[in-house]
Amino acid sequence: MAGSSPARAALLIFAVVTALFTSLLMMPWAAESGRPAELHEALFVATSAVSVTGLTPVNTADHWSLAGEIVIIVAIQVGGLGILTVASLLAASVTRSLGLKTKKIAQEGWKTDQLGEVTSLIKIVVAISLIIEAVLALVLVPRLIHLEGDVLSGIWHGLFYAISAFNNAGFVIHSEGLAGLDHDPLSIWAIMIGVFLGSLGFPVLFALWRTRLRYSRWNLHTRLTLEVTVLLMVAGAGLYAVMEWNNAQTIGDMGFLEKLQNALFASVNMRSGGFSVVESNLENPQTKLISDALMFAGGGSASTAGGIKVTTIAVIWLAFLAEARGDTESTAHERTIPASAVRVAVSVVAMGATLVLVSTLALMTITGQDMERPLYESISAFATVGLTSGLTAELPPAGLYILSGLMFAGRVGIITFAAALTVRQRSTRYRYPEGRPILG
Amino acid sequence: MAGSSPARAALLIFAVVTALFTSLLMMPWAAESGRPAELHEALFVATSAVSVTGLTPVNTADHWSLAGEIVIIVAIQVGGLGILTVASLLAASVTRSLGLKTKKIAQEGWKTDQLGEVTSLIKIVVAISLIIEAVLALVLVPRLIHLEGDVLSGIWHGLFYAISAFNNAGFVIHSEGLAGLDHDPLSIWAIMIGVFLGSLGFPVLFALWRTRLRYSRWNLHTRLTLEVTVLLMVAGAGLYAVMEWNNAQTIGDMGFLEKLQNALFASVNMRSGGFSVVESNLENPQTKLISDALMFAGGGSASTAGGIKVTTIAVIWLAFLAEARGDTESTAHERTIPASAVRVAVSVVAMGATLVLVSTLALMTITGQDMERPLYESISAFATVGLTSGLTAELPPAGLYILSGLMFAGRVGIITFAAALTVRQRSTRYRYPEGRPILG
Ligand SMILES: [K+]
Ligand SMILES: [K+]
Repeated sequence: MAGSSPARAALLIFAVVTALFTSLLMMPWAAESGRPAELHEALFVATSAVSVTGLTPVNTADHWSLAGEIVIIVAIQVGGLGILTVASLLAASVTRSLGLKTKKIAQEGWKTDQLGEVTSLIKIVVAISLIIEAVLALVLVPRLIHLEGDVLSGIWHGLFYAISAFNNAGFVIHSEGLAGLDHDPLSIWAIMIGVFLGSLGFPVLFALWRTRLRYSRWNLHTRLTLEVTVLLMVAGAGLYAVMEWNNAQTIGDMGFLEKLQNALFASVNMRSGGFSVVESNLENPQTKLISDALMFAGGGSASTAGGIKVTTIAVIWLAFLAEARGDTESTAHERTIPASAVRVAVSVVAMGATLVLVSTLALMTITGQDMERPLYESISAFATVGLTSGLTAELPPAGLYILSGLMFAGRVGIITFAAALTVRQRSTRYRYPEGRPILG
Repeated sequence: MAGSSPARAALLIFAVVTALFTSLLMMPWAAESGRPAELHEALFVATSAVSVTGLTPVNTADHWSLAGEIVIIVAIQVGGLGILTVASLLAASVTRSLGLKTKKIAQEGWKTDQLGEVTSLIKIVVAISLIIEAVLALVLVPRLIHLEGDVLSGIWHGLFYAISAFNNAGFVIHSEGLAGLDHDPLSIWAIMIGVFLGSLGFPVLFALWRTRLRYSRWNLHTRLTLEVTVLLMVAGAGLYAVMEWNNAQTIGDMGFLEKLQNALFASVNMRSGGFSVVESNLENPQTKLISDALMFAGGGSASTAGGIKVTTIAVIWLAFLAEARGDTESTAHERTIPASAVRVAVSVVAMGATLVLVSTLALMTITGQDMERPLYESISAFATVGLTSGLTAELPPAGLYILSGLMFAGRVGIITFAAALTVRQRSTRYRYPEGRPILG
């Protein structure tokens, strides 16, 4: 795997970019106090911004100067564009190296021909990102100018939230979090739609644009991504509403429609956005467990969302369906899912579960806490969600380094891992006879 | 799946047997107090005994009369033999229905020809079980007569533990648990070896016996089962020792070798035996999380151990290895693992994880607790381990019914589910073109 050079290049680029933003955040001018930030804080926030996670050990609004906040939003924009580009390129490089027959197959997932060169791919990524962010800003800026009664502040905050939302970054620059906007449906819906679009991933956004939303022309990847995304979004909102309906610390005291709106907002953000209207820590333990599952699931491939990705879940579910029906192959939308896709999906899940388990054990040892909060924080970091149980703000440097590593691995590691696995198909020289161990 | 009639017959048989033992345990003479047990208690203990789990809401030694304890040990023996027989028969029926070509393949897992008829399979299952139990009893009975200074009591306790150990039942009939034996290495090792042999499963025990332990003649199923079992056993003991080394409430005050012995004992029993020298509830939270993982893993197929089974883990690991190496197929020991085996493995893991998640949420709602103990208890019930965080003894009837259902599903459900999935292979009438969604 380490031998795959596009994957290695991607890891290196992200490491260098993160190091650059770490050093910027350690400048005296970046901090509100004028004292340079500690290495573990700066590294954590830079990693969190570049990986568009949103976890932070310090309050963004209070700790950083305006210059520091600009560094953070630039890091988010660079990280988001970088992720979309690199993940799309890796998916395309998978296509190229699979040879002629499989090239046609892989085009189902990603029509690389129509993009031509790398530069045109980057151009389209940047164009789609900026157009969506601009539309979000056109809604948010006037609204925030109105709400805050200050033009400059409204522009700055509107731009910040537009970028933070589309990139699924979850960073906020009001010291009380998003709470100031929680009674403004327009802002809530703008952020929610921005997060939702960002979580679909570039290949899906491109396919939707290219096909003018005509369902009959969507490819397999687009259909599976949208199906699982909508399913998880609705299920998550329903479960959240049921669990929190009477919890006065979260949505219990709200009106009927506001409860539903906030359940949907929570559901959309659990899978990666990381914005929260209510403090996650005040939710029921059951809600946290459901969040754990949804955070781990994540969003679309080559998107600013993290996690194991919705197509991974789709492939596993299709494998189960094939077995339940007694089919010899998994199929969906009149396409056969190759057996190696099932193996890649299983590998991604196994790798994610192992990373989360090891990090949880380490954080439990460092903090002496029960598993609940270390597990929540580890999944949030791995899946670059950014929701917090409050643990990040309490962690010593060792814990922050672990979560920084997890954000990096969850962001760049999973993308490159899956691409590297998919790309390395060598032909088998001879076949062994089949052997079937007894299972279950 | 429900259409598969051997699987449906197995579910029915286990339900009837469990109902029978429930009614026996509700007899006045079964209880020490002479008052008949409540339905939820009797159903729970009968399910726990028949599924060889070992969880119990009441102290076995204090609550039941000698007659009640005899009912329990008979239920364990009937349940254990039933599981070995039914699981082996289902594996054989899989073989039969796969047709001629695949029949040869499936024989890798299970040589049904050499057994001939169902009756001879049952005879061999009973013979192997009784021989191993007799050897264990030959060690334990004299030892317990010596330790307890009473011949009748020593014989009864020795027989009880011999049966409970080989069947991985984890039931104890000393009110202080196994603690009375924790300084007697001979008893500890006898129980540990009994649990280990029981957890390998009948196909492996039969293969070991038939091949006179000659490695070169072991089939794929036997090799994979032993490899993963030993790996998990050693890793579990190592992690347990590291985590608990200085915990004075568990092994912290013991000598060096006794610490290692107890770590190994804990590791062997975590994967299904369910015996404990130290109270699980006194272990570090990290140890409980590691236990969660090992309990979920479980033992061998067609064994008295539960969980998702070690061969399921082997198949997933081999799928990962194949992708990492860039092979087009998973292979092990010069055999190709068919793609459908990977799909069955994934389905078993997904079903197990879903059952545990739903039960954990339900128990959290019923008890108002954080996830730690409901998760531990749910995994212990699903994987028929029987280790307890103490929660079972505190649960109201609703909670006991949930865990009873989980023990039943974990025991009979997973076996029949995997067999039903494997057996239903229909030929595909036409092939769709391949479609590969982007993953990770
Ligand atoms: K995020
Ligand atoms: K057990």
